[in-house]
Amino acid sequence: MATPPVDPAQLAADIVAGNRRALAKGITLVESTLPDHRRAALALLAAIMPHTGGASRIGISGVPGVGKSTFIEAFGGFLIEAGHRVAVLAVDPTSALSGGSILGDKTRMETLAFNLSAFVRPSPAGRTLGGVTRRTRESLLLCEAAGFDVVLIETVGVGQSETAVADMADLFMLLLLPSGGDELQGIKRGIMELADLVVVNKADGEQRNIANQTLADYRSALHFMQSRCAQWQPRALACSALHGEQIDAVWAAIEAFYAAMADGEALAKRRAEQARSWMWSEMGESLLNDLRSDPRVKRALPALEAQVVAGELPATAAALQLIELFRSS
Amino acid sequence: MATPPVDPAQLAADIVAGNRRALAKGITLVESTLPDHRRAALALLAAIMPHTGGASRIGISGVPGVGKSTFIEAFGGFLIEAGHRVAVLAVDPTSALSGGSILGDKTRMETLAFNLSAFVRPSPAGRTLGGVTRRTRESLLLCEAAGFDVVLIETVGVGQSETAVADMADLFMLLLLPSGGDELQGIKRGIMELADLVVVNKADGEQRNIANQTLADYRSALHFMQSRCAQWQPRALACSALHGEQIDAVWAAIEAFYAAMADGEALAKRRAEQARSWMWSEMGESLLNDLRSDPRVKRALPALEAQVVAGELPATAAALQLIELFRSS
Repeated sequence: MATPPVDPAQLAADIVAGNRRALAKGITLVESTLPDHRRAALALLAAIMPHTGGASRIGISGVPGVGKSTFIEAFGGFLIEAGHRVAVLAVDPTSALSGGSILGDKTRMETLAFNLSAFVRPSPAGRTLGGVTRRTRESLLLCEAAGFDVVLIETVGVGQSETAVADMADLFMLLLLPSGGDELQGIKRGIMELADLVVVNKADGEQRNIANQTLADYRSALHFMQSRCAQWQPRALACSALHGEQIDAVWAAIEAFYAAMADGEALAKRRAEQARSWMWSEMGESLLNDLRSDPRVKRALPALEAQVVAGELPATAAALQLIELFRSS
Repeated sequence: MATPPVDPAQLAADIVAGNRRALAKGITLVESTLPDHRRAALALLAAIMPHTGGASRIGISGVPGVGKSTFIEAFGGFLIEAGHRVAVLAVDPTSALSGGSILGDKTRMETLAFNLSAFVRPSPAGRTLGGVTRRTRESLLLCEAAGFDVVLIETVGVGQSETAVADMADLFMLLLLPSGGDELQGIKRGIMELADLVVVNKADGEQRNIANQTLADYRSALHFMQSRCAQWQPRALACSALHGEQIDAVWAAIEAFYAAMADGEALAKRRAEQARSWMWSEMGESLLNDLRSDPRVKRALPALEAQVVAGELPATAAALQLIELFRSS
């Protein structure tokens, strides 16, 4: 993903002016790991920060087969009809390995992808979730600067990717299939409890009744959970993305969420906390990456880690030795 | 908690010989943050490692009022009757602030506390969960070296303390109250899904029926969850710690857990993964602590963090600046 040398100030101005090609170029820049590009990307981000924060940031997850892309097509189309400008981003740490990045498949979301009020960007390639997450967070900021007022961040249920998306979204939406409880076990542990909004998709035809049962099951499960914040109790509803039914109800629930989260600046606090913890996790990851790539640590790590895993060496002792090797470099 | 200079090798020998005062002294040593004590503690741990790993490590959590100490009294008493030696540790990051550390109250667990087959240790004081967790993990190893074959690690439902306990225990047990779903919302998000075993306490008298309803509710909630590993499906049962009813059933379920987790060395793998992630989290925390205490970082941090929280500066840019200040020191 080589990019020509860029003038971050000019690129920022073009993005803020709503130039789609500038936005695409900016996202390519933040996705690059080349040191020069990284520096330019940070300058670009610094320049556009005053123009960020204006979008509804909505995370969307669900097991494969739940119909995420059909839902996003229908939901995005509905929002554009209502006069919104919609950007769709994705977090998929497997894209580098599988090659098949979500949103990368051109046959998906055709309508949205070619609508001028929409901007669809595949998941960046990356070996680590942290890297993919960082680029998506930064792309989110660029989309906001470009004037998109709804940003949908899709993720597949891979490892911690839902948590990563919930940590950058205002609202985390979990799509469920109509089904008996057993099939729902594909949902990763803890994910359901991240959900501010649960949407049972494919509530049409013969599945309508099962969908209602799924809603009931979810609501009983809700009893065991503390909501993420006092201002909002998670809601559950059913829709049919295929037939465009109840899509408006999904948006109504999201609007209710934003109205509720204005109370006591709950949303502002959630975003502030997200930004703070993002900064600290960036520093933690960056330091551990530096440590991992330290030649002396590289030599010592395998043996020490093996002893720790074998229960021969306390983890704290191994950690101390590796830290001392790193700090003394 | 000043301790006299110790000979780690001698102390290790005394602990392995089953000397209770040596064990108490060893735990005090690992709890100390003085550099000299820390070095001695690591030498002590290195010496006792060959004698660790022999205990059933059982984490126990539950909301205040669920009757944790009554349960641990009854459960510990049952185990000692059955010929086990039981150590009880605790993780309570609030102990430093609240003063009232769990297990610190001498009126609690009197029977256990004065039984020679039991060893009860209050939660170490500490301002950070990481610090409290590290000391408890190390105390767990010392208790194993001292020949205790069941270690109960209690935690109050504070912040991430349940996760910390689940990360050091083989089995995580969640105690619930008999109640309608609504009262259960005190359970922190994600905690229920950590549970390998759910025990509804106070299933006695008029509450017996409600307890059974709670079991049913929990089982329906289970439908939404993936179990922590293929070898074990979480179980739920009810007991009365007060009347000592079904305590044997709790232990039977735990024995079934260990039998199942022997398959494919699932337990060995869980412990190995716990040790590895403990090492990495130690390094991450240690590096971030070093960074936080760096004088140049201290000066720059407040302004940068404020800009990040205010959305004026991208978290990645602030992180990079702080890392560079830290690495250049």
